[in-house]
Amino acid sequence: MAANKTDATQRRARPQPGRRAQLRPIGVIRSDIKKRSEAPMQGSEGAPDAWLEVKSFAARALDGLQVGNDVIVVTWLHMARRDVLKVHPRSDRRRPLTGVFATRSPDRPNPLGLHRVTLREIVNNRLRIGPIEAIDGTPVVDIKPVLSRLQDF
Amino acid sequence: MAANKTDATQRRARPQPGRRAQLRPIGVIRSDIKKRSEAPMQGSEGAPDAWLEVKSFAARALDGLQVGNDVIVVTWLHMARRDVLKVHPRSDRRRPLTGVFATRSPDRPNPLGLHRVTLREIVNNRLRIGPIEAIDGTPVVDIKPVLSRLQDF
Repeated sequence: MAANKTDATQRRARPQPGRRAQLRPIGVIRSDIKKRSEAPMQGSEGAPDAWLEVKSFAARALDGLQVGNDVIVVTWLHMARRDVLKVHPRSDRRRPLTGVFATRSPDRPNPLGLHRVTLREIVNNRLRIGPIEAIDGTPVVDIKPVLSRLQDF
Repeated sequence: MAANKTDATQRRARPQPGRRAQLRPIGVIRSDIKKRSEAPMQGSEGAPDAWLEVKSFAARALDGLQVGNDVIVVTWLHMARRDVLKVHPRSDRRRPLTGVFATRSPDRPNPLGLHRVTLREIVNNRLRIGPIEAIDGTPVVDIKPVLSRLQDF
């Protein structure tokens, strides 16, 4: 019985077809922003550049990215609250409580962050990106190219 | 011992601060596209409108969304492969193998889909959205407003 349990655990830990919606970080943000209170609300609001350290298992998936590309970095906002469904937009209490799906609040049922950044430098599996408001240690779960200058984000 | 194990399992199953990166679907796509082979590669390539059925626990988070808004629907592409790191872009074998982070392939370590759609109709917790290339039954994990017409996606 104990052996079976171990086998099952190992099966779950391996990458699987996507039926089980467990994210596996592909990298991590290394930033001078250390606390949520220090982070601007959006990258365009004075955020710094940061390093994205890609884990070795995922490094091959970077092939084709080039310095100067704009990409969407998808983060898991690990300090966010998942039980919040309404917020005052931009934490301004004068603004009425609004559903989180109508805001960019990090607090939401699945705290995914979308960050449109420019790829400034590539050093092996480390990417210099920015501007980005994510705090140091934030897990990264995906990187996607920007499709078109005509589409908004 | 058995009781302790049950308690721990229940603790893990409740919504938690985001340290554990387990997605909890907030809704599901109801579409006439039933198979991956029928889906256009992007919403802008002839995709239909679809219904997004939001689960009752998350319905309050919709407050503030309005018909005519453009939103980003984030899906979990549950039919995708998570062990693929390189693909031929747009499944065109004449194009060289490219890292999935430089493509929009659904096959990638964390198969998240980003869909910029227009909100066409709201009927209680059902949203008519489109165009969207996601197949019927695709779990939805987040909805975010488009921030600016000046930002690409």
